[in-house]
This record gives sequence, C-alpha cells and structure tokens, in this order.
Amino acid sequence: MRIRELTSPTNSLVKVFRRALAEGATREGWLAVEGPHLVEEALEAASTATIHSVLVSEGAMVKFAGLLKRLSPETEIAQVADKLFRQVADTQNPQGIAGLVELARANLEDILQRRDVLLVVACGLQDPGNLGTILRSAEAFGASALVTLENTVSPFNPKAVRASAGAIFRIPVVPKIKAENLVERLRASRVSIIAAERSSPQTIEKANLCGPAALLIGREAAGLPEEITRHADLRLSIPIRTGTDSVNAATAASILLYESARQRGFRYSY
Amino acid sequence: MRIRELTSPTNSLVKVFRRALAEGATREGWLAVEGPHLVEEALEAASTATIHSVLVSEGAMVKFAGLLKRLSPETEIAQVADKLFRQVADTQNPQGIAGLVELARANLEDILQRRDVLLVVACGLQDPGNLGTILRSAEAFGASALVTLENTVSPFNPKAVRASAGAIFRIPVVPKIKAENLVERLRASRVSIIAAERSSPQTIEKANLCGPAALLIGREAAGLPEEITRHADLRLSIPIRTGTDSVNAATAASILLYESARQRGFRYSY
Repeated sequence: MRIRELTSPTNSLVKVFRRALAEGATREGWLAVEGPHLVEEALEAASTATIHSVLVSEGAMVKFAGLLKRLSPETEIAQVADKLFRQVADTQNPQGIAGLVELARANLEDILQRRDVLLVVACGLQDPGNLGTILRSAEAFGASALVTLENTVSPFNPKAVRASAGAIFRIPVVPKIKAENLVERLRASRVSIIAAERSSPQTIEKANLCGPAALLIGREAAGLPEEITRHADLRLSIPIRTGTDSVNAATAASILLYESARQRGFRYSY
Repeated sequence: MRIRELTSPTNSLVKVFRRALAEGATREGWLAVEGPHLVEEALEAASTATIHSVLVSEGAMVKFAGLLKRLSPETEIAQVADKLFRQVADTQNPQGIAGLVELARANLEDILQRRDVLLVVACGLQDPGNLGTILRSAEAFGASALVTLENTVSPFNPKAVRASAGAIFRIPVVPKIKAENLVERLRASRVSIIAAERSSPQTIEKANLCGPAALLIGREAAGLPEEITRHADLRLSIPIRTGTDSVNAATAASILLYESARQRGFRYSY
C-alpha cells in the first residue's frame, strides 16, 4: 500500500476531490463519495464499482487502516492534513475519508432484453433524498435498473447517494434520457409503460405487474408530464383513503415496486 | 377580522411564536406551524385542529388576505414587520405566515376499542423526516392512530410536521408512551403486537394483518429493542432481494401499512 502525501490545496487531485464532492461526480462521471460506509459499500460492489482514488485525513489514517488495506493495489491513496480535508469535504462533520468511484456503464439495450425486466423511471423528481430512497427500494425489490429523464435531479447528487445506502453501486443507473427516446426503446422491446398517477381509477393491486414493465414516477406536486403519460399502457393509482391527498413520491415508488415483487412471487430474477 | 400590530421583539406572543417555531410546539403542547400550506391544512381540519393564533408579516398581508378571512373569529391575528417575522421564523426562507394550533386530544382507550384498529407505533425513530413520512402514510392507509414511544423524535418536530403534509392535523397522535404501559393496554384490548423485523423468516404478505393490530417500527440501524419485541405476537419481515440490506424505515412502515390495507380490502373503516 503506497500512500502519497499531498500538502497543497492546489494539488490537482485535491482540486478534483473538492469539486467532485460538492457536485457528486467528477467531469468524467466518476462518483465522489464521503465517509467509510460508502467507501466500504463501493469496495464490496467490486463487480460494478471501481475505486480509483481515496483521500484520507492524517488523523483518520489509523482508524481506517483496515479499510485501506482491503483496497485494490490499483487504487491511488492520498493523505492530507485534517484541516485540508475539512476544506475539501462537503459534509459538516467530515469523517476523514472520501473516494472517487467509477461505476460500470449500464447498457439499456441489454437490460431491456431481460425476461420480465422491471425498470423504475424517475420523471422530473427534484428531491435528491427521495431519488436515493427510490434507488434503495429499487434494489431491494429487484428492479433491473433505475432510469432518470432529463430535468430530474442527478442520481449522483451526494444526498441521493447517501439516501441510496450504497444501492447506487449495485443497481444499474441510466441517467438523463430524453422521454421520446426512452418511449421508443420501450416500445421496440415491448416493455409496458406504467404511469403512477394518483387520480387514476385503476389501482395497482388489480393490475397485472408481472410482465416486462417500466414504472414511471413523477414529482409529487406536478405529477407526470402529459408528454409521457399519453404513451402509457396503464395508468395506476395506489388506493388510499378518500380525503387524503397522496403519499410521498419515494413511498409511492416503493409501494409500486413492492406490489410488482409481490405479484412476481418475490423471485427477483428479472 | 381584527388584527393586532406587534412591534416589539419582547412582546409575549412574539416570544411564544419564536420559541414554539424552533421547538415545534408551545409549552402547553400547541403545534407551531409555518407557511400557508400548513395553516390551510389546519384550517381545513376544523374538527380536530383549532388555530389559536396566527402571525403574519406586514409584506405578506395582501397575499394571505383570503386565507386570513377564512379563519375563525376566535383566532387571534397579529401582524409584525417583515424583519421581525424573519427573526421569529425557523425556516430559511420564511413565507410570512405562522400559526399556533391545538390538536384534539387522542384517547388511546377509545381508539383501542375500534373494530379492526390499526396502530402504527414508532419505537425510537430519530429522523423527523421519516416520522413525518410515516404519519402521512398512516393517514393515507387508514391507520387509526400513530403512537410514539419515549426516546422517539417528537411528531411535533417542525421537520416531522412538514413531512407529514398536514396528516398531523387529521390523524390522532399519542406521543411518548412507556413501552410496558403500551404493551399492557394492547394486551387488555386484545390487539395483536406485530414487530417489523428484517431478520424474521416470516413475511408480511403471508401473515394475517386483518385483525386489530399494532405495527411496531424501529430505528433503521438498531431495529426494535428486545424489551418490546419479546412481547410481539408476530415478527414479520418484508421479503427483499437476498444480498440487499434493508429499505428506509419510513418505506418499511409504509409498505407494512399498504399490505395491511390490501388485505383489508382497502375499506378504511378501522
């Protein structure tokens, strides 16, 4: 294990970390994560996530020695003074470790060919915590991938990554697709387009969610844009009590995923 | 509509608002809410919520004139300068209106007598956003009440109130119950104690959730304390994909509520 010591705030790796931790990803699309939990989750997802660089604060070297030893020999490890780490970190109480992680590219064409594929499509969601929670549920209920349309908060946003509890490293993510492009590809692969729409009289538990499907989740207030729902094969609501307005967007997505998994017998091979 | 003008930051109502907005409630337990949405939700829940006082910033008087006119003649309305309102407010971008709301006292004994009662019991949750999301789902899926144990974040915490999207005004809340006290009362009323436990081999969709039940939801990391689960009639998990860790605590509670409602035929009379 070779450890570089970096002392200058203008060192290029320090600069890359600072910008990437604030924005969630580097210019080439590598994910920037902070804290031992996320670094560890990335390490354990070795087949889909490659840790290129790790930045450690001097004071945290002993505490994270075990974690650092488990890193691949290809991973670059750099140490900085505690004060410099705090300047680079995006969190209020930085824990002294951060990493740059390259995720395997998700190939939507391959994913769409899977038997009984189940996609979650985030359409315009703005709350990164909600998107991360959806990612976490998508993984738990065996979804094939998460797709985000343009004008949707980035799944690489630091808050989304934290809320995903590591799911971002393990479930394929296809970001920033144009709606018309996605619709075309779903049609070509005969994947049903299912829009979650709270005003729909047809409810999720009575619909058939067993076949290849893309579940469209909109923003809470605005709902799904008409340019997408007009292509939907099904518009489904969750049957909530009359007089109540709606559930949280991440909750709605999670319940739709649960209901799909339930109908599929919780087999999770899709 | 009589409007008092308050100019001094040491005026007693101004002081009550400032402390209550920071803490979520006044000393006598009246809820402090900020923003027109929550004031409106409280107004619409007239049978369970009484708005005692409303504080408005000078600059927002015209914008909220319609809302103010709909308030009960019993509601005290006070106007302050914009600068003073910003000092009193707890949010970063205050919208210029806040209210003190008394909720009808929930009587747990009466609630426990209801046919097929469905309680949600938050056991030690610390994240106010999660607790608020659970409140919202509890209302949507027709739960009879939300109970919180001691050592659980307050349902009157401002973040919990915001995440509840107004559900706090409409669903009975019984806060800060001692675990042994609750267990005794559930036993006496023959309400099943159902613990959500991710390691349990028995899963929610195979259990019977139709009878009178209390659903126990724990903290994500720590789970439920053994002093409570040892009294559980059922310990149930959500059947997620092998190798995934768990779903978010609010998501787990919402899915358990959805599954209960599904088994009960979404009739919502409990």
